[in-house]
Amino acid sequence: MDKTKVAIIGLGTVGSGVAKLLLDYGDRTARHAGRTLWLEKAVVRDLKKTRACDLPAGILTDDLDEVLDDPEIEVVAHLVGGIEPARTIMLKLLERGKDVVTANKALLAEHGPELFDRARELGRSIAFEASVAGGIPIIANIGQCLSANQIESLHGILNGTSNFILTKMHEDGAAYAEVLAEAQKLGYAEADPTMDVDGADATQKLSILAHLAFGARVDWQDIPRSGIDTLDVADVRYAQEMGYKIKLLAVARLVGDGLELHVSPTLLKAGTPLAEVGGPFNAIRVVGDAVGPLLFYGAGAGQMPTASAVVADMIDTAVGRTKITFKTLELWSRREARVTPNDYAQAKGRFYLRVNVQDHPGVLAQITAALGKQQVSISSVLQHEAEAGSQVLPLVIMTHETTEGAAAKACKEISALACIKGDLVRMWVRD
Amino acid sequence: MDKTKVAIIGLGTVGSGVAKLLLDYGDRTARHAGRTLWLEKAVVRDLKKTRACDLPAGILTDDLDEVLDDPEIEVVAHLVGGIEPARTIMLKLLERGKDVVTANKALLAEHGPELFDRARELGRSIAFEASVAGGIPIIANIGQCLSANQIESLHGILNGTSNFILTKMHEDGAAYAEVLAEAQKLGYAEADPTMDVDGADATQKLSILAHLAFGARVDWQDIPRSGIDTLDVADVRYAQEMGYKIKLLAVARLVGDGLELHVSPTLLKAGTPLAEVGGPFNAIRVVGDAVGPLLFYGAGAGQMPTASAVVADMIDTAVGRTKITFKTLELWSRREARVTPNDYAQAKGRFYLRVNVQDHPGVLAQITAALGKQQVSISSVLQHEAEAGSQVLPLVIMTHETTEGAAAKACKEISALACIKGDLVRMWVRD
Repeated sequence: MDKTKVAIIGLGTVGSGVAKLLLDYGDRTARHAGRTLWLEKAVVRDLKKTRACDLPAGILTDDLDEVLDDPEIEVVAHLVGGIEPARTIMLKLLERGKDVVTANKALLAEHGPELFDRARELGRSIAFEASVAGGIPIIANIGQCLSANQIESLHGILNGTSNFILTKMHEDGAAYAEVLAEAQKLGYAEADPTMDVDGADATQKLSILAHLAFGARVDWQDIPRSGIDTLDVADVRYAQEMGYKIKLLAVARLVGDGLELHVSPTLLKAGTPLAEVGGPFNAIRVVGDAVGPLLFYGAGAGQMPTASAVVADMIDTAVGRTKITFKTLELWSRREARVTPNDYAQAKGRFYLRVNVQDHPGVLAQITAALGKQQVSISSVLQHEAEAGSQVLPLVIMTHETTEGAAAKACKEISALACIKGDLVRMWVRD
Repeated sequence: MDKTKVAIIGLGTVGSGVAKLLLDYGDRTARHAGRTLWLEKAVVRDLKKTRACDLPAGILTDDLDEVLDDPEIEVVAHLVGGIEPARTIMLKLLERGKDVVTANKALLAEHGPELFDRARELGRSIAFEASVAGGIPIIANIGQCLSANQIESLHGILNGTSNFILTKMHEDGAAYAEVLAEAQKLGYAEADPTMDVDGADATQKLSILAHLAFGARVDWQDIPRSGIDTLDVADVRYAQEMGYKIKLLAVARLVGDGLELHVSPTLLKAGTPLAEVGGPFNAIRVVGDAVGPLLFYGAGAGQMPTASAVVADMIDTAVGRTKITFKTLELWSRREARVTPNDYAQAKGRFYLRVNVQDHPGVLAQITAALGKQQVSISSVLQHEAEAGSQVLPLVIMTHETTEGAAAKACKEISALACIKGDLVRMWVRD
């Protein structure tokens, strides 16, 4: 049987999983690829570190040149996180004739055009299934399986850590900080979870998907985003009471000639498919003009699900499919015009608003007047009695459809009212 | 831009949809394929029939030879239903050097090995995404995206007509015959719906998926199946009362060294993803040993969703991806050993049983004794009071896990009891 020599750069969690699939299940890979993927080298920074996977002698090295200088190594799984030295390593691999498979979404979101242009110049390819939604093959599905469609919208739960925390907040009624600590203990959140919980990770993934689905080169920093790190469990309870669940939702949709893009905690109607995605799972709802709505659900992170995506890409690259896809899709380029997302203030939808108000007559009238001034009409109001001894009570308002800009203006005015205590909370609502 | 000349054989619902995508959205296809798919010919039986799609002059013909004799036509969408002349036409296309894209699951289920062997001998390919689950790209996902995995199980809702009828029976509490008539009026069921409602269509699709996922060449007629055509709306009501929904479920799972395969109405726990798939939609839950559970959801039939799958295959074929996949996957062959599914009697699971019994003392004792004799233990019992004036009442029993064989034996004995009126109903239960 033919064989393709491959290498792994970085033996962290995902890298070890890839090594395991290549070494322990080589026969399977051979059956599905029609050829053996032969693990020749695994490059690590520190040879002394103990590792979860047992490698045959001669594979482990801390010298990248052993991969670069071996012309027989054709496909390399680039599993180095962060921007540098990840970027430099990828450029070197391409320049030395390797086809690259990566899981590094941050690198693609920051330097995709440079890296893809360079790969094209050199006649090489970059495969990146594992960079978005872990084990869910969303890149292949959008880039290849739906190519007869104009994608109209994407709605995704793209960050497993946030979804794990939100699910726990819903189930246990526990506060954010408490659940985060538990998630860290269970390995569902990093020691520094900033990028996960502030929405940056989901936004980087959204920028990759938007590029693939709409050909839109958008800087991920230009996408309006908010995370779950300021979410109050009280809002989780009110949402539940009104028949909704809060999810960190990434949205990309065609509106007129433009593209609406944002990532934020969003109330989704309980019982709808995305609302019911629990735990560390991811899901993406894609609407194509021919195929209609599709939903993809699965593990968005984790060692073996991510390794599954990396090895599928290595197989595609070894057999030659990636080369074709990479060429026909013409993904990312510095020559491409940058697309500016639609003005966020024009984005339409319903909103959830919550303020703590003083229990005085006329308060509701002041608030509704501020909303009315911006033409924001109210769909429902939830107001419980004040707790014994408290002069402050929470007021929850669901609006009818309006624009982000009108809602923001009204909220600014409401926040300035003397009767308001503390910060106003505002979230998108999707039915 | 490069162009690939293509043809369509059969301008029925799906064929017209494919023509529409190629003609009206040619620029999109060109963008995603890196080349133009140029519709050269569309072959129909009857030139006089009025058609939904407007074709430019010179494309429509009733002479298959115009396609066969044109060496420039490289890719052909074969959208002829049934077995003959569909089989002969496909063989002719392959022999005349065409790569074929088909939506005909019955033809593949019956003659897959012959057709695939012939294509291989001739250096041609057959793509068949549209043959299973319409617009859901399940063939590409299993055959390509999950190739690092050993698939452990597939659970699918694969027949949109049955699912539409079941959903209506649940929602409206209406009887099967009544809902079927409505489905026919709305176009969700054929004039002759036999293959859809008796489970044959879902079973043919399951045999294709089982082949792809497990390399198992199984004759679809060897797969135990039952349809929804004998389903009593009373059982829908009882299932609902106990927190379940009835779905026509296709199951393929590895058990030991063997493969468990069957298609039958099954009680699924309400709130679980497959249970909540409503209307004419399809969904497939796939578990891979690396990736874990994945769910794919979308339109399982209909003009444009199916055309979306056909055109995606035409693009894959035109750019060369299909050729690679077809070669590496070594799908179907007459040389392959046939796999006999596991003995159905050994399949394990829980069951729903319902009998109408005479309202006499000792009846429950007789029934539980018959179950006990086969070691079938009872999880719950539902028995309502008899309606006024009636001496007969329904008794619903949910069992604990047992085997199909034990349940069948116990049910045979129960059916023979003097206190039983009418037929016993038995269905699988999945939580």
